[in-house]
Amino acid sequence: MSIADALLNRIDSTQNPSVVGLDPRLSSLPEAVRREAISLYGNSREGAAFAIERFCRIVVDQVADIVPAVKPQVAFFEQYGAEGFRAFERTIAYAKSKGLIVIDDSKRGDIGTTAEAYAAGHIGEVELFEGKTSILGADWITVNPFLGDDGIKPFLGSVDRGIFVLVKTSNPTSGQFQNLTTEGTPLYLKVAEAVNSLAGSRRGTRGYSSVGAVVGATYPKEAEQARKAMPHSIILVPGYGKQGGTAESLSPFFNPDGYGAIVNSSRGIIFAYEENKPSDAEKWPTKIREAAIRMRDEIVAALRAASKLPKGW
Amino acid sequence: MSIADALLNRIDSTQNPSVVGLDPRLSSLPEAVRREAISLYGNSREGAAFAIERFCRIVVDQVADIVPAVKPQVAFFEQYGAEGFRAFERTIAYAKSKGLIVIDDSKRGDIGTTAEAYAAGHIGEVELFEGKTSILGADWITVNPFLGDDGIKPFLGSVDRGIFVLVKTSNPTSGQFQNLTTEGTPLYLKVAEAVNSLAGSRRGTRGYSSVGAVVGATYPKEAEQARKAMPHSIILVPGYGKQGGTAESLSPFFNPDGYGAIVNSSRGIIFAYEENKPSDAEKWPTKIREAAIRMRDEIVAALRAASKLPKGW
Repeated sequence: MSIADALLNRIDSTQNPSVVGLDPRLSSLPEAVRREAISLYGNSREGAAFAIERFCRIVVDQVADIVPAVKPQVAFFEQYGAEGFRAFERTIAYAKSKGLIVIDDSKRGDIGTTAEAYAAGHIGEVELFEGKTSILGADWITVNPFLGDDGIKPFLGSVDRGIFVLVKTSNPTSGQFQNLTTEGTPLYLKVAEAVNSLAGSRRGTRGYSSVGAVVGATYPKEAEQARKAMPHSIILVPGYGKQGGTAESLSPFFNPDGYGAIVNSSRGIIFAYEENKPSDAEKWPTKIREAAIRMRDEIVAALRAASKLPKGW
Repeated sequence: MSIADALLNRIDSTQNPSVVGLDPRLSSLPEAVRREAISLYGNSREGAAFAIERFCRIVVDQVADIVPAVKPQVAFFEQYGAEGFRAFERTIAYAKSKGLIVIDDSKRGDIGTTAEAYAAGHIGEVELFEGKTSILGADWITVNPFLGDDGIKPFLGSVDRGIFVLVKTSNPTSGQFQNLTTEGTPLYLKVAEAVNSLAGSRRGTRGYSSVGAVVGATYPKEAEQARKAMPHSIILVPGYGKQGGTAESLSPFFNPDGYGAIVNSSRGIIFAYEENKPSDAEKWPTKIREAAIRMRDEIVAALRAASKLPKGW
């Protein structure tokens, strides 16, 4: 099955086009997790890696039956070196074992054999002395397009893995370069056109491609143009919730068939307990689950309001 | 001392503005290293990580007194997961122990707290439960500018670390987006202008900034413009040698004072033994050393020919 079909099927079975982002910042982790890590490993990078992995497992347990996918952000793991990278590997494996699709948010971008090495490690197989082996085994990876097709194509080797190319990012200064216009066409649309030409020949049976794009929830106007420019691409939409994107602004990201976008929230879900401190400290996992359900319901309501709810939901 | 001063001082003490790139591809490693790894760890990712680390140590030993800096490419390590990342950490530590400046070629680019996490892990200090600790401890890191200042500024926290922002990359399709023009100004020059405005206030006593840029040796015409647009930035120049950049084309990358650029070659140096197979298989490290010396001599000759040799060399 193509990876796009797999994602759409999971979106259907959960009736939920949203993603939980795993951004495990140590200082925001629940006291119980921090204390356990310190008691086992002391105030060390091993302890930090243990804590972020443990936390992510609990998040995965809470949301695995609600969302189609999770999106671990490698920076929060990698910053703790080899131990952190091990936690990243294990988090991906654990999420996959629970049936979740894993979007590896690493925004890698490099050329030739270097990009091939990233692709091999993250979504493919790496070369050993004899034969090959899988390392991270993520399903999708985010890719930075600044280097042009040379930096994107090496990630397209596997038919059963997908990429989300950065088209218009959610951050305040994303327009600094992405909105520069050439003969009336902004850079993000040029990237969208490049995505579309790579996407066309890589469509699954449901019509969507393994070549997707990233467009921030904070830019619904740009999303409208990008949506039209890449009709077969699934758009990964960061910036929902904490970064300011609202359910009402999501409609332009979706195609008329109700598919074509998957909306991510990270801090708003995984650190939900920070805002709604449960009186019983043990209840923090429940707060995560409730926040994931709330996001699903908000997005589904917005799709319904826009008459874009998929058939049969 | 500012990191730019430190780099210029090493360039002076070695009389060499070149960098050896560490791109340890398993299939290109010498048989002796491969055999040792297999005998110790078998055909495994542990063996692969051992081999690439061992190889990089030998390269470092061969070039530490010749070049000012090495540039490990994280992709070739990271692809082997946690073991590979450990090899990356150790390679950086070993190079630093030999007095080399380390340019962490990871081309990271992300926003807000995510970019802060990358910066912390690669060139800064990460948060533990109490206090902070250094993880990779690289001196410089390459940064992708696609997300605008939001993606660059988080790397500027440390006064004694530096960044090289991608301005014009060395690969064939780099023009696809980087050469799109807005009112006559190509994107790479817009990025160069952004680099320059960040660079100005971060200059060391020798006039150069901790905010540098990447411009490929394969694009000397673009380099001429970029050089003018960023007078205080050190330009990291990939693409020399195997990718097609020649010594003769390097002059535009340097300022009239003979500084302002540092030229990288990876495969042409570290895999020099592939082309000039030594009759005695034990002599492969010598071939690496000879290639590094050859590159130094070629670049110095080109600077002399362009009347750009630094004073006192």
